[in-house]
Amino acid sequence: MAEPRSKRTTVRRAAERGRYDEETIHAILDEGIVCHVGFCVDEQPFVIPMGYGRDGNRLILHGSVGSRAMRALADGAPVCVTVTLLDGVVVARSVFHSSMNYRSVVIVGRAEAVTDPEEKMRALERLTEHLIPGRWDDARRPNDREMKGTLVLHLPLDEASAKIRTGPPKDDDEDYALPIWAGVIPFAPAAGGPEDDPKLAPGIERPEYAARYRRTATASG
Amino acid sequence: MAEPRSKRTTVRRAAERGRYDEETIHAILDEGIVCHVGFCVDEQPFVIPMGYGRDGNRLILHGSVGSRAMRALADGAPVCVTVTLLDGVVVARSVFHSSMNYRSVVIVGRAEAVTDPEEKMRALERLTEHLIPGRWDDARRPNDREMKGTLVLHLPLDEASAKIRTGPPKDDDEDYALPIWAGVIPFAPAAGGPEDDPKLAPGIERPEYAARYRRTATASG
Repeated sequence: MAEPRSKRTTVRRAAERGRYDEETIHAILDEGIVCHVGFCVDEQPFVIPMGYGRDGNRLILHGSVGSRAMRALADGAPVCVTVTLLDGVVVARSVFHSSMNYRSVVIVGRAEAVTDPEEKMRALERLTEHLIPGRWDDARRPNDREMKGTLVLHLPLDEASAKIRTGPPKDDDEDYALPIWAGVIPFAPAAGGPEDDPKLAPGIERPEYAARYRRTATASG
Repeated sequence: MAEPRSKRTTVRRAAERGRYDEETIHAILDEGIVCHVGFCVDEQPFVIPMGYGRDGNRLILHGSVGSRAMRALADGAPVCVTVTLLDGVVVARSVFHSSMNYRSVVIVGRAEAVTDPEEKMRALERLTEHLIPGRWDDARRPNDREMKGTLVLHLPLDEASAKIRTGPPKDDDEDYALPIWAGVIPFAPAAGGPEDDPKLAPGIERPEYAARYRRTATASG
């Protein structure tokens, strides 16, 4: 089992749930859709939901060049990015041991703006394929104006840790005899059947990747 | 439409998606299960997923008294708590306009430890009922040891804002003629049928609130 590579990302509470290997961290990141990006402004933290992607051992973020947060991150402000997948509600006999099954990744570090046009286009491809695997080949690609208006960041995954809880409740020994139901309510994000854009031009068929959209780990990049 | 009550929580990017009325903010919080709690340690942000609850115009957080983060928050460190509900993947004709439908709430402020035993027990009831509506009456209630080991915090919702995107893609006018499918892939967390604890004592039936668990807004409190 991999060891933590940084004190800052060493799991302290429920330390047995901590995981530090790339495979685990990448798989959680690849399954998630939304990350929560934290940054500090004069001691005040802000946490903003964003889409993201992954390219090897780097997370990709993007946003408008007009976003103050994005510009601060591009300037190297310390950042924390967290991705959480909720797998179930753990219904223990006691209130105290009631919990959740989850897989989360916490990344700390500093991001870097991606300025090379080819590298930036590749990052946008990864972002698109993360959100909708299979889409890049069909969609209208970014034009010059859009490229200029988009800030793309790479955040190394060097300081990252995962935390995972699985399985049934863990009640106190004496509570198992109580006449109280206990178990797990599994929780998984379900993609419904796609809804066509009301303005869809006639004769356009729904692509397979939309019709069969499922949220599982994407290609490992 | 309600106005923002604080500059710090005024939605700037895509300002038309900002909402500031209590009803909207409460409904999003009541539907969510996991919040992301951000705090700063020497300019370094950390973002940690946690469960939560709501009591009127206050968010409830809880954790171990052994958690450094929880103790810092109890001491009044500035905090940001964000809840995000992902409603769909928005597949636009252009990569640039591809997006997500979501409802999110961002709260900033300072939390306060709940020390009064009755108030603390009420907060734990609200937390439990938030996670598993209907559970409090069945579960084994917190004992003295558990109460002492648990830090409970109230965070006022005075500085909070919601941000919401709904509806189909919004492509550039000239892109609507492109022969590219576009639409929305709805996304909703589905609770599967409950799984009994393998150690469940014989003869215990699954309660209705577990069998029919659905994630919708809980009572407004």
